[in-house]
Amino acid sequence: MRFVKMHGLGNDYIYVDCTHSPPPSKPEELSRRISDRHFGVGSDGLILICPSERADVRMRIFNADGSEAEMCGNGIRCLAKYVYDHGLVRKRSLRVETGRGVLEVELEVGAEGRVERVTVNMGPPILRAEEIPTTLAGEPPREAPVTVAGRTFAVTAVSMGNPHAVIYVEPEFLKSDSPGDAVAEWGSRLEVAPEFPRRVNVHFVQVQSPHEVTMRTWERGSGLTLACGTGACAVCVAGVVTGRTQRRLRAHLPGGDLDLHWSEADNCVYMTGPAVEVFEGVWPD
Amino acid sequence: MRFVKMHGLGNDYIYVDCTHSPPPSKPEELSRRISDRHFGVGSDGLILICPSERADVRMRIFNADGSEAEMCGNGIRCLAKYVYDHGLVRKRSLRVETGRGVLEVELEVGAEGRVERVTVNMGPPILRAEEIPTTLAGEPPREAPVTVAGRTFAVTAVSMGNPHAVIYVEPEFLKSDSPGDAVAEWGSRLEVAPEFPRRVNVHFVQVQSPHEVTMRTWERGSGLTLACGTGACAVCVAGVVTGRTQRRLRAHLPGGDLDLHWSEADNCVYMTGPAVEVFEGVWPD
Repeated sequence: MRFVKMHGLGNDYIYVDCTHSPPPSKPEELSRRISDRHFGVGSDGLILICPSERADVRMRIFNADGSEAEMCGNGIRCLAKYVYDHGLVRKRSLRVETGRGVLEVELEVGAEGRVERVTVNMGPPILRAEEIPTTLAGEPPREAPVTVAGRTFAVTAVSMGNPHAVIYVEPEFLKSDSPGDAVAEWGSRLEVAPEFPRRVNVHFVQVQSPHEVTMRTWERGSGLTLACGTGACAVCVAGVVTGRTQRRLRAHLPGGDLDLHWSEADNCVYMTGPAVEVFEGVWPD
Repeated sequence: MRFVKMHGLGNDYIYVDCTHSPPPSKPEELSRRISDRHFGVGSDGLILICPSERADVRMRIFNADGSEAEMCGNGIRCLAKYVYDHGLVRKRSLRVETGRGVLEVELEVGAEGRVERVTVNMGPPILRAEEIPTTLAGEPPREAPVTVAGRTFAVTAVSMGNPHAVIYVEPEFLKSDSPGDAVAEWGSRLEVAPEFPRRVNVHFVQVQSPHEVTMRTWERGSGLTLACGTGACAVCVAGVVTGRTQRRLRAHLPGGDLDLHWSEADNCVYMTGPAVEVFEGVWPD
């Protein structure tokens, strides 16, 4: 089975083209085996590029534990690059069927005729507290106090289909020097704070200018990660509702940069970022 | 650049055949980039298969941080399999030039004509305390008391070119259930105990029978690992000098099984274990 490994800001998946050959018979089991970083190829999961009756192409994502995911902002950028660069669909505006419906993506093609960056319409933010969901008051809750282990944080809550807590901090807070990483220490506590009944992704943000932030994330269920696409969208929205940053924002994440735009025209958040093909391989099964 | 990823008990390297084409110009830098598990192929390092004037083949190992290593017991088994399976040298006894001299390996070829297991002569153990090195008394020190953080362990010390501390424990000690892994908790403390001036690899061992043990390792500088080849050799030697196990021993490690034999005939330790080819790939540089 031929595959390509790609990453978006270090979020890496194994991509298999199933548009011209049948998909693997047991993708859940394959994803577990092929994603193992010591005994397999190693990845965050497996993405199958499938034909679609509703869109140009269909994306199926399997996590490294074999479970099927609905969508992944970093993954869909890479899938779009694969589809264009490998000639499956030669359009610069693609419609991709995902577990969250059909999403529109726009491709930036470089001088060498290959996709370098991709913009994804991540949809409108969800601002009503009970839909985020959170027990904090506000639409959305803006810098509301949340206390964990004796320390109080000012939390802005936004959902992009999954719940996010955004906290503005001083630069020192973002430094990671083991032992003692404040993002891990406080992120893990805030993730399970009772104010968030379905737990929450926690983002600590330093504002550099009205158009630029640096952020680090504690991801719900995953811990420290290199990049959280929906989280960066939530940070863009949180910046607007708190008046700290503008509707167009560049976010520096540990894995690289994302450009966000919360459009006034259609209320959707547009996320633009890189997609990289790492190598091609052949899996013996 | 074509490569093959292989693993021995989960200790995985990227193997590049440099016998028919020149080696990469900057292998240290390449190892860092290609070993990255999110932005590269992902591995514990890079192994170059080179021509040798003194042996059948020469192995050069680069760690994931770019530093060059002298030898790796799991790596040399995979290199031997590559050399045979890919037809570079069609002999079942190979001489491999390494940073620790020329080592002899014996290949077990399966019904399909491919190497399944490899035996490596790991040389004689070093038993003199000042050469291990340790301040504990004995040749070697046998179940000598070492106290860290208020708890005393009975430590048998052996060097296989690198220092090892072997500690016999009850089965409960080896269970890993986070939070609270006794091997990590006490291994990390014993690694830096003052009795071991160059620090030490720490192995916790449960004896099943005179010919069978289960072990888990805290590796000096690496922490918990799936398999430590020299450590399994040290456990074999420690079992003989303490009278707990025999000269032929099967060791169950987290990554799989190794068979050890401390030969009375030549005083060398022979280690036999599997070697697995995972997949082939092409790195774009």
